[in-house]
Amino acid sequence: MQNLLLKNVILGGKVQDVLISGNRFRRISERLEEKAEQVIDGGGELALIPPFYNLHSHAAMTLLRGYADDMELFTWLQKYIWPAEALLTHEDVYWGTKLALLEMIRSGTVFVNDMYWHQTASLDAVEEMGLRAAIGYMFICVPGGGVLESNRKANAELKERAASRSSRVHLTYAPHAIYTVNEKALLEIAEEAKQNQAVLHIHAAETLREVQECQAQHGMTPVAYLDSLGLLGPATVLAHCTHLTDEDIAIISERKAVIAHNPVSNMKLCSGLFRFQSALESGCRIGIGTDGCASNNNLSMLEEMKFAALSAKVQSGQPTAGRDLDVFAAATRTGCTLFDIDGGEIAEGKLADALLVRLQHPQMLGDYNLIANLVYSADSSVMDTLICDGKILMLHGKIEEEDEILARNRSICRKIAAVRPS
Amino acid sequence: MQNLLLKNVILGGKVQDVLISGNRFRRISERLEEKAEQVIDGGGELALIPPFYNLHSHAAMTLLRGYADDMELFTWLQKYIWPAEALLTHEDVYWGTKLALLEMIRSGTVFVNDMYWHQTASLDAVEEMGLRAAIGYMFICVPGGGVLESNRKANAELKERAASRSSRVHLTYAPHAIYTVNEKALLEIAEEAKQNQAVLHIHAAETLREVQECQAQHGMTPVAYLDSLGLLGPATVLAHCTHLTDEDIAIISERKAVIAHNPVSNMKLCSGLFRFQSALESGCRIGIGTDGCASNNNLSMLEEMKFAALSAKVQSGQPTAGRDLDVFAAATRTGCTLFDIDGGEIAEGKLADALLVRLQHPQMLGDYNLIANLVYSADSSVMDTLICDGKILMLHGKIEEEDEILARNRSICRKIAAVRPS
Repeated sequence: MQNLLLKNVILGGKVQDVLISGNRFRRISERLEEKAEQVIDGGGELALIPPFYNLHSHAAMTLLRGYADDMELFTWLQKYIWPAEALLTHEDVYWGTKLALLEMIRSGTVFVNDMYWHQTASLDAVEEMGLRAAIGYMFICVPGGGVLESNRKANAELKERAASRSSRVHLTYAPHAIYTVNEKALLEIAEEAKQNQAVLHIHAAETLREVQECQAQHGMTPVAYLDSLGLLGPATVLAHCTHLTDEDIAIISERKAVIAHNPVSNMKLCSGLFRFQSALESGCRIGIGTDGCASNNNLSMLEEMKFAALSAKVQSGQPTAGRDLDVFAAATRTGCTLFDIDGGEIAEGKLADALLVRLQHPQMLGDYNLIANLVYSADSSVMDTLICDGKILMLHGKIEEEDEILARNRSICRKIAAVRPS
Repeated sequence: MQNLLLKNVILGGKVQDVLISGNRFRRISERLEEKAEQVIDGGGELALIPPFYNLHSHAAMTLLRGYADDMELFTWLQKYIWPAEALLTHEDVYWGTKLALLEMIRSGTVFVNDMYWHQTASLDAVEEMGLRAAIGYMFICVPGGGVLESNRKANAELKERAASRSSRVHLTYAPHAIYTVNEKALLEIAEEAKQNQAVLHIHAAETLREVQECQAQHGMTPVAYLDSLGLLGPATVLAHCTHLTDEDIAIISERKAVIAHNPVSNMKLCSGLFRFQSALESGCRIGIGTDGCASNNNLSMLEEMKFAALSAKVQSGQPTAGRDLDVFAAATRTGCTLFDIDGGEIAEGKLADALLVRLQHPQMLGDYNLIANLVYSADSSVMDTLICDGKILMLHGKIEEEDEILARNRSICRKIAAVRPS
C-alpha cells in the first residue's frame, strides 16, 4: 500500500501530521516519522478539512454555462436548453463531465450525485479523473407511454459496465420527476432500486406548478404522492423540495429520506425557497447540491453553502437560521451517510477524502472560526490540495489534463454556439 | 509619462493591444508597436474588462470576519461587534483596511466607498496600496446631544489631510443614519457637503425597525424624511434601501440619488430584500456594495453581483429580473458616475482602471457570454491582473506586501479573540 504523509497541517486548530495508507487515514498525531512515498508539508498554513459531496447535479451541463440566462422557465427550456442538449453526443458529455469534474476538484468537491444522459461517458470521466460519483440509471417517459428508448439504451450500457466499476462509483435509479415518469414506471423503478440496494434519485416539489398539478391529479402533494407509492426511504434523495408543507416535512423526516437542497438554482429559476431550518429542526436529513451549470452557473459547493445559509435566513426571517455548522455538515456529511461512503470527516480509519485549504489568504482572516470562513467568506482560491480515496487529485493548485479538457470543451461550445437562437 | 502596453488581450470578443500612458488608456488597436516601460502579454487568454467600484463598505471590519455570525441583530451588535470595535486602535484600522484592500485587489475591485472610524488610517492604507477610495467624515450623535467627540476629532484630522491627498481619494460626508444623527446635525452636515461639492453617504431604510420608528416620529418613510430635509440629490448615496415604497422609489429616481445595494448583508442580517428591478425600471441609479466583513463576510464584488441578480429574482418572483448586464453595470459604472471618476469602461481617453481575467479557466467555459460568466460563475480565482489609475496593483496574481499584511492582522486578531465572549 502506498503511504501519503501530510506534515504540519492544521486540524482542529492544532498542527498535526496525518498518515494516509492506501485509501484510508491510518494515523493522526502531533508528529509522525513514518516512511511515505509522498509527503505534503502544510507548513502550519494549510488546514485539513473534509471535502464536499455534491448531492445533485447534471455535470455535463457545464457545456451550457452562460448559454441562456435571465429568462422565463419555458422560454429557457424550450428555446435554448433542450435544443442545445439534443446536439450533445456521447463524446461531448464525456468532455463536458470532465470539465465539471475539473471545476469540482478546483473547488474542493470529491463526489457528485449525477443525473444526465450518456451515462457511460460520465462514468468514464469519473473513473479517469479519480473522483467519486453516483451515476443514475435515468428514466423519462414518452407522454402517455413508457420509458424513452434513449434511456433504455443508455441504462443497458450502464448496466453492462456496472460490474467492472471501481468502488468510487455508485449507481442510482433516477426517475426524472413525477410529472415526467408515470406511476407504473415509478413503481417498477423503485422496486428495482430496492432489489439492487441502490439509492433512488428524483426531482421533487421543485416548482409550484408541479405541486399544483400533483394536487389536481392525485389530491396530494408530490411528497405525499411519492410516499403513497412507497418511494420514500433512507435510500431516497429528493432534489429541490422548494415547496414543502409541514406534513411533507414530517413524512420526509419519518422516512429518513434525504433532501438535496439546491439554493442557487432555486433562486435563479425563481422555483421557491426551501424551508431549510424547519426541515432541519424536524429531523430531516439535508444535503446540498449545485444542480447543473445552466441554472447556477457554477459547481462551487463553497458558494452553495453561503446561498444555503443566507436563503435559510431569508426564508425563515431569522438570522439564526442556516447556521454555518449545519450548512457545512449538509455539504460534507450527508452525502456520505446516504451513499454509505465511510468518509466526510478526518479521522483514523476513515476513507481518505480530504481538502487542504490555505489559511495564509485574505479571505481567511479574521481567523476566529474556520467553518464560518468557509461558509461565508472563502471562494475556490483558498483551495490548495484535494485528496480522494487516498489519491491526490489536485496538488498545490495543479491538476493534470486541465489544458486538454478546456481545449476540447471550447471546441464543443463552438458547435453549440452555432445553433444558438439570437 | 510611463507607458504600459497590454498585448493580445480579449476586448469585445477580439484580440486587441491596449496602450496605457500615465493614468489613461491612450490607444486601443489590433496591433500596437509603441514602446512601453512595461508590457503584459495576455496571449489571447486574458479578457480586459472594467474593474469593480464598491459603493458601500466598512473596510477595516475584515478584522471581525467570522467573529460573530448567525445571531439576532442586537445580540450580534451589543455583545460582539461594538465591544470588539471599541478595542480597535488607529493602527489596527490601518492594518485592517490594508487587509480589506488586499482582498479587494484579489477580487478585482479598485474603489471603495468607505465609512469607518480612524479615517486617516484608512486614507494612509489607500494611498499606499494604490486603490481609489472615498473616505467619509463620519457623524454619530450622542443620544439627545451633538456629534460624538471621537467623530469630531477624527474628522478634523481627516480635514487636515484633505489638501495633500492624491486624486484617487475622495472625501464624503457620512452621517451614519437618521436614527443615530439628529435633524439639526443632518442639516448642517448636508450643507457642508454641498459647499464642498462632496458626496453625502448615509445608511437609509435598512431595517423595518428604522422605517417604523421614522414613521412614528416624523410621519414619513426614511426616504421621504431625508428628502424633506433636502438631503437627496445626485451626490447622495443611500446604503441598503431594503424597505422602499413605490413613493420612495419615485423620490429617489426624481432626485437622481444613488442606491448602494448590499444584497449579501441584507440577506445575512435578514434586513429585507431591496426591490432591485422596480427601482431600476423606475430610473433609479443603482450601485453595489459589499458592506463590512462582519455581515457578509467577504468583499467580493463578483459574489455580490450574483447575490444581487438572484435576490432580485426572488424579491420580484421573476427570473427575468436582475439581468446580468444590469447587475454588471451597477458594479462597474455607477460608482464612477457618482464620484465623477472618468472610468468604468475600457475606452481611449478614459482613466486606466482595468482588470484582466483568465478565460483559460473552468469557471469561464462555456464561453458564450463573458458577462454572464462573471456575474453567475466566476470567483476571484479568475483574476489575473488589476490596474488602477494606470498602475499595476496585482500582476499575474502577485501582490507586494501581502505576507506582512496577513501577519500584522493575525496578531491584531489575537488581541480581539482574547476578549470574545464565549
